[in-house]
This record gives sequence, structure tokens and C-alpha cells, in this order.
Amino acid sequence: MIDRLCVIGVGLIGGSLAMGLRRAGYCRHVVGVGRNPDNLATALARGLIDEASHDIGASVSAADMIVIAAPVGATRQVVEQFAGRLKPDAVFTDVGSVKGSVVRQVEAALGGLPANFVPGHPIAGTENSGAAAAVADLYRGRRVLLTPLAETDPEAVARVEAMWRAVGAEVEQMPVERHDRILAATSHLPHMLAFGLVDSLARQEASEEIFRYAAGGFRDFTRIASSDPVMWRDICLHNRDALLLAMANYQADLDELKKAIEQGDEAALETIFSRAKKARDGFVH
Amino acid sequence: MIDRLCVIGVGLIGGSLAMGLRRAGYCRHVVGVGRNPDNLATALARGLIDEASHDIGASVSAADMIVIAAPVGATRQVVEQFAGRLKPDAVFTDVGSVKGSVVRQVEAALGGLPANFVPGHPIAGTENSGAAAAVADLYRGRRVLLTPLAETDPEAVARVEAMWRAVGAEVEQMPVERHDRILAATSHLPHMLAFGLVDSLARQEASEEIFRYAAGGFRDFTRIASSDPVMWRDICLHNRDALLLAMANYQADLDELKKAIEQGDEAALETIFSRAKKARDGFVH
Repeated sequence: MIDRLCVIGVGLIGGSLAMGLRRAGYCRHVVGVGRNPDNLATALARGLIDEASHDIGASVSAADMIVIAAPVGATRQVVEQFAGRLKPDAVFTDVGSVKGSVVRQVEAALGGLPANFVPGHPIAGTENSGAAAAVADLYRGRRVLLTPLAETDPEAVARVEAMWRAVGAEVEQMPVERHDRILAATSHLPHMLAFGLVDSLARQEASEEIFRYAAGGFRDFTRIASSDPVMWRDICLHNRDALLLAMANYQADLDELKKAIEQGDEAALETIFSRAKKARDGFVH
Repeated sequence: MIDRLCVIGVGLIGGSLAMGLRRAGYCRHVVGVGRNPDNLATALARGLIDEASHDIGASVSAADMIVIAAPVGATRQVVEQFAGRLKPDAVFTDVGSVKGSVVRQVEAALGGLPANFVPGHPIAGTENSGAAAAVADLYRGRRVLLTPLAETDPEAVARVEAMWRAVGAEVEQMPVERHDRILAATSHLPHMLAFGLVDSLARQEASEEIFRYAAGGFRDFTRIASSDPVMWRDICLHNRDALLLAMANYQADLDELKKAIEQGDEAALETIFSRAKKARDGFVH
């Protein structure tokens, strides 16, 4: 149970967490912090938060639990305003899709890694963004990955875990580097491919006609290309090395596939497609 | 209204058409032709067809309308068995995702392009295959593209159009080359990217772990990688030139995106992602 929760960035991710915790009766009071007055007004009107603020320092100073749900690139600037303001037993966590960079930014902001900081990442979301898109059950049955550090207090980890469990998530722990490598492959790379495809087609002369004849497969394949551009700009830049490696691996494998098409290699194509189908069917079941 | 319909290949596409036409009361008798006895038994048991056969020549000789719904690469071999067997007023069409190759195969099989052949392609489907996956409303509200040739009888085109309208589809016409170029971009290329991604990840050492932490975005992005490998092998090979061109364009644009990530070019990344989001949001609405 959380007495005062402070959510910095009341978008899809932060707003859905606040909404879910309130529905679960797991927190008494929620302060939402943000820079966009319209978005905060929406969050208040939808009952995601009890109170809206533009002032990070003042808001965190009264909180028991602080969730940073801003774009990854804003972490340092946000956390700099925590210095000397947090209550002694307050815990803070984040929801960023990249963990290495977030940890480095927190360290830079505070001149070290505090025991009450628990890096986290809920593997959930939709292509929509903002408080208007928040839903109370976004995390039900979804995984949340925590990447605690040597410095992290196990008691702080337990409190963050309990918070996520309260909204129905399954919580697991893994090292920072492993998190960033896995997410580069399963999430960051597919987003690049989808953004890249839609942009590539949109820039072609016949783009209107092209989209006119696209069907359900295209719609699903490109859903993630409707995601928030600023959030994804930050993820790219802050998980650069792992993402570039994943892209290079993928491009090499795509070149092989292209070669099989060029050479009319029926057996190779059938092998690649069958192996992919088997893996994908296995993933779904 | 069709008296005797012959569907060659009673899978998702052919089976759903037969099912939809029967439901609509648009045909009196359906013969399903195929090589897989289990699949034909399923088609009979599910009431997609009235009669099952392995004999193409005998089945087409009694038909008023013939729909070739076999993999694209089998077209020539199928149509060779039509020679001298069709009723004078019979019309035949196909459902292949590639039109240029199908037209060339029909020409090769019959020594010329008959006036009663109407090349066609319903832009519909799911990642499932076989008679078990057929659904009566697969084509409701979906587009069917017909690519009639100079040789094609307009009366034959009208009959194929009327058949597709009977299952709720919207029918449009376009030239063969334009069809193959557009579909390479909106369908064949995304399938290559999805098959390629899943296969690339499946071949990595940590593939189990990778799939374990994949979420909804990955599931949607890769749905089309569960498609039928043989069907897609044929599409690749039979739309090779247009597909290779689309892949090359895409790879060049992906290289630009990669460069922007390498160089930490925030503005370029935000431009690419925003342009893609706008195009994708526009496509959905």
C-alpha cells in the first residue's frame, strides 16, 4: 500500500499505472507531474491522478513512491531535481525501455547510485500515447522487468515489486545489460523496421496508391509505427550499441534471404520461411 | 449465379470463397479439387464443397466457373489440364498474389491467352491456412483486384466481378505490372521482413529467452511470419524483380535510419519517426 504516489509523466505508461493502482485501492493519493497542461487536465478529468503539478521538486518531496515515466532521455534532468528533496524512506523507480542509460543518468544526476532507486521496465504498451490512452488493466498478466544494482536496497525492490503485482503484473529480475540486449532484439529492432518501412513507402511517389491497397497484414505489421516519435528517438539513442548490433545481425540475415530470392533458391526459401513459421507459432502458443 | 463452381485448391482462400458463395446462395454445386485427402475431407465435413476430386481435367469440364486457388507456382501445371476440356461458356480466374507470372504461366500452358481467363487477387487472408481455416466472411468489405488483359472478354470480367461482389468484396481493376509493383511494397516486402526477423532471432543462441520477453508489438509485427511457407516461397520467386527492387529501396532507407542512430542525429530520427507515424495513422483512418 502506497500513501502518496508521484508519477512523473502521466502518459500511457505512467497514467495506466496510476489508474490501475487507484482501482486496486493500492494508493491513497496520486500526484501527476508533467509539462503539458492539456494532458494533465485530461489525467485529472479521467481520475488517473488526484492532483496535477509542474513542479518536480515539490511533488517528490512529499511522496513515498516516485515513478519516472518520462521519455528515457529526460531522466537526468528529472532526477537532478530529486537531490536533497526525497523523504528518507521514499523509493523511486522508472519505466524506461532502456536500463543502462537510465542507470548512468541517475548516477550522473545524483553523483552516485542511491539504494532507494530500482530500475524497472513494464513490457506493455500500445501504439497510443498520452493520458487519454491510459487503461487500468494495461499491466494485467504482463511482465515487468526490474534490474536492481549492487547498490539497490532489497527492501526497495520488494516495494516496487509489490506495486506492480498490485496491478496484476508478473515481476522478474535480470541484469541491466541482458535487459538491453534482449529488448533491442524483440522490441527496439522491430520498431525500427516498422518505422523504416512506413517511412520508406510514404516517401515514394505512388505512396497514396500503395497505402490504398494495403491489407490486414500491413496494418498489423506497421501498428508499432504509430508509436510516439519522441519516446522512440530517445530509446534509439540511449540503447544505441545494442540496437545497432541487432540491426547489423538482421541486415546480414536479410541479405541471405535476398540472395536466395535472387538465385531462385526454392529450398533455401522454404527452409527460412518454415523455420520462421515454427518459431512464431511456438511463440504464440 | 453460378451453376457449377470448381475450386482448385481448397485452402483458406479457395475454401473461404466457396463457403461465402454457398452461404450467399450464389452457387448450386461446388467441386473442390486438391491433392491432400485430409484437407478435402475437412472441406467436405465443413460444408465448403459438395464434392471432392483429385482429377482437375474431369472437374473443370463440367464447371461454369473455375477458381484456381493453388500456390502461384503450380498455375502452369494446373492450367495444362484445362486444354480442350472447358465448356464453351466457362470462365476461369485465379487468386494469386502475383499476376504477371500467373498470366505468363497460363499463356505457356495453353499456347496463348484465352478470352475467358480473368486474372484476379483478393487482398484478404489470415496467417492460417487450409480448409480448416476457411471463414465465410473473409472477403466482406475487402478489395479484390482484377487485372484483365487485352485478350480478356469483358463479359468474363463481369462474371468474375459479380462472383466477388456476392461475397461482399469491392472489386477494382488495374494493369498487371502495377498490381505486382504495389503488392511487392505493401505485402510481399513486409512478409520478407517479418519472416526474416523471426528467423534471425530464432537462430540466435538466446532465442528462447528472446521470445520469452517479447510483447504485443512483436506478436503483431510477426503475425505474418506464421503464413504458409510454400505459398510464400512461390510468391517470392514469381514476383522476384518487383520484390528485389522493393527490398533494395527498403534496405537503402534502413541504412539511412541506421546512420542517424550511429551519429546520434536526434532531429533526423524524430523526422523519420514522425513522418512514419503520420503516414501510418493516415492509413488506419
